[in-house]
Amino acid sequence: MRPLFVRRARQLVTLAGSSAAPLVKEKMSDLGIIENGSVWIENGTIVAVGPDDELVRRFADRLAEAEVIDAKGKTVTPGLIDPHTHLVYAGSREHEWTMRLHGATYMEIMNAGGGIHATTKATREASEEALYEESKRRLDQFLLHGVTTVEAKSGYGLSLEHEIKQLEIAKRLHDTHPVDIVSTFLGAHAVPPEWKHDPDEYVRLVIDEMIPEVSRRGLAEFNDVFCERGVFTPDQARRMLEAGKASGLTPKIHADEIEPYGGAELAAEVGAISADHLLRASDEGIRRMADGGVIGVLLPGTAFFLMTKAADARRLIDAGVPVALATDCNPGSSPTVSLPLVMSLACLHMGMTPAEAMAAATINAAHAIGRAHLVGSLEPGKKADLVIFNVPNYMQIMYYYGVNHAETVIKGGKVVVNDGKVYI
Amino acid sequence: MRPLFVRRARQLVTLAGSSAAPLVKEKMSDLGIIENGSVWIENGTIVAVGPDDELVRRFADRLAEAEVIDAKGKTVTPGLIDPHTHLVYAGSREHEWTMRLHGATYMEIMNAGGGIHATTKATREASEEALYEESKRRLDQFLLHGVTTVEAKSGYGLSLEHEIKQLEIAKRLHDTHPVDIVSTFLGAHAVPPEWKHDPDEYVRLVIDEMIPEVSRRGLAEFNDVFCERGVFTPDQARRMLEAGKASGLTPKIHADEIEPYGGAELAAEVGAISADHLLRASDEGIRRMADGGVIGVLLPGTAFFLMTKAADARRLIDAGVPVALATDCNPGSSPTVSLPLVMSLACLHMGMTPAEAMAAATINAAHAIGRAHLVGSLEPGKKADLVIFNVPNYMQIMYYYGVNHAETVIKGGKVVVNDGKVYI
Ligand SMILES: [Zn+2]
Ligand SMILES: [Zn+2]
Repeated sequence: MRPLFVRRARQLVTLAGSSAAPLVKEKMSDLGIIENGSVWIENGTIVAVGPDDELVRRFADRLAEAEVIDAKGKTVTPGLIDPHTHLVYAGSREHEWTMRLHGATYMEIMNAGGGIHATTKATREASEEALYEESKRRLDQFLLHGVTTVEAKSGYGLSLEHEIKQLEIAKRLHDTHPVDIVSTFLGAHAVPPEWKHDPDEYVRLVIDEMIPEVSRRGLAEFNDVFCERGVFTPDQARRMLEAGKASGLTPKIHADEIEPYGGAELAAEVGAISADHLLRASDEGIRRMADGGVIGVLLPGTAFFLMTKAADARRLIDAGVPVALATDCNPGSSPTVSLPLVMSLACLHMGMTPAEAMAAATINAAHAIGRAHLVGSLEPGKKADLVIFNVPNYMQIMYYYGVNHAETVIKGGKVVVNDGKVYI
Repeated sequence: MRPLFVRRARQLVTLAGSSAAPLVKEKMSDLGIIENGSVWIENGTIVAVGPDDELVRRFADRLAEAEVIDAKGKTVTPGLIDPHTHLVYAGSREHEWTMRLHGATYMEIMNAGGGIHATTKATREASEEALYEESKRRLDQFLLHGVTTVEAKSGYGLSLEHEIKQLEIAKRLHDTHPVDIVSTFLGAHAVPPEWKHDPDEYVRLVIDEMIPEVSRRGLAEFNDVFCERGVFTPDQARRMLEAGKASGLTPKIHADEIEPYGGAELAAEVGAISADHLLRASDEGIRRMADGGVIGVLLPGTAFFLMTKAADARRLIDAGVPVALATDCNPGSSPTVSLPLVMSLACLHMGMTPAEAMAAATINAAHAIGRAHLVGSLEPGKKADLVIFNVPNYMQIMYYYGVNHAETVIKGGKVVVNDGKVYI
């Protein structure tokens, strides 16, 4: 494999030096930008990062053998990382939108058999092939928007068989698609209709049957719970997260989205790697997250699409919580794959700066899924995942909103998107 | 030129029967959808629209000669129309964004020499070639998002020489680019710094020198005024709009964006074709617009990006005002070309339904720039401007937000965008 030399980026956003721990407070604005910067890549790995003249000198006798991509005038960043998605699902729910636009709440629609339940039904009924194909198309779209690593949750199966099916499709996508998939078991996404009469029995199934089997098959690294009034209580959540830990799965929590419910506190208590949503997290919960180094994964696209006030990122960052951003890609509350638009929303609706949003969608996102040793920054030794955006500075990625500026995407040293098309 | 046969759209959104007058009230939901619909095109013009089997029978002996595009499973709509943009400008203002994110208002930034003044300076200084090239790139991006007709305002020249320069570039773009440009003179966009001491003298220049010269050269069809406290008063606006009428330019108004200031009322009084923004329009102003048939061009992207509450489209539609949607594409308050995202915003922030948003971005937008006899619906005799979206129904264009679903764009019977690339 010839070396790959990405040269002369007007801004090379490296985020160097942030692999050991997530960025917090003012460190989140420390993007490590190199002007006229270049990256030397060999065998899928970054070998050197620096000003172009420095790299040209260093690799002078090897320039001729390298494949060169000229990024002149453009912005190069680490591949974007989406640490919270519900990637694998079937069916579409735009008909529910009209209900919501007329005032129905998300919880009302779910309690009427829509929402998660509608998608669970469609996902259970879909063939593995159809589910794979549909999710693969979504993954292509992620890649086109500059996203090179995606966390994917189960949670539309809600039975041992169908949760396994979803996770196996995620695994197959990881194996066959350039985007890396990191899997999270979310059997506790909702109480399925057949256990509505006895939610505790469903919790027991998650603990005694699903978690051990998912773990035994190596189908997930993380164990997530939707902890919200009317879904799972903090006590149920705690039991499931502890059971996951006993099986080697690291806790994550859908926390305090609709009301303060102790999710942030629980995240700190069980040592979760992240607590996600956090629109209504209490001051005490935020303090404990900061103390425990729990990453706050914020999902402004969901608030935007549900027409609610977004989480207050400023409050979390100022309190010392490391913040990451994610699409929450799912067919009901955030039907998008555009992490760049989510970064715009973070600035417009959550009090973040463009620099913080950039850190939150790269290195902090990598930390939120345990991948910061591999990706999320441009440094020697890391995987060569990078994006060339056709804008002269990183702010414009978010400023010129609603338009996909990713032009070239390099995954593991290979060009997988060029000029807006996927080449696999 | 071979006939072009676009076949078997899962949904063919025709908006038929709406060319004589803009759609109002419940008529705005009347999209004229044909399932499994097809369009027969000859010499750039639509010859027939209907169910596929009907057209196959009708053109049976000519099928072999036609170029066929299969839109199976997809949604075909009229080319989108953007009736309010500031397309031709130079420079970028993302550095102002940090000020705004820290609480400065748009008017404060403008009064500090930023905003419109910064863009005016950059636009005056730009060479014609640079301005043309930059605007052309923007126009390519519009086309990629399914927009086939764009209104373009001057207003970053603010002197006879530079207003003419902007309008001539718009004309050159119209002549050389597939997107049709409809030009509006907006010499009254702001009082330029050199006339700050005597705004009435600038108004006199607009009336006595600019409007007659723009009209004489045939460089604009519309005459627009930014009527807002601290910019131009309703009295100044009235004088400039009447002067435009005397020179054959139809009035438009930037009205009631920041406070109720009589802009909607003035629009009705002078017989404006549209009043735009309307975030703070009075009840009386809205009533008069409805009575006068003045189109309300709403710009939810601007409210979104300025972090203010959007106009209440529901109130306007219920009052009988025909509503259109536009990006307001400009470098400060709405830096986007994504009319589809603006349609999503119209649903999420302004109380519109997806059906109303679709009508507002096609036929009503055409009416707002005097082009409804030519474009904005799919009917025999109209120009063959259409978009194939890679989604099974029109709702998904807006529901799967922040992603560009336009796959193929046909302009005047020619394929100008295919698979996300511009072919000119
Ligand atoms: Zn989620
Ligand atoms: Zn405007």
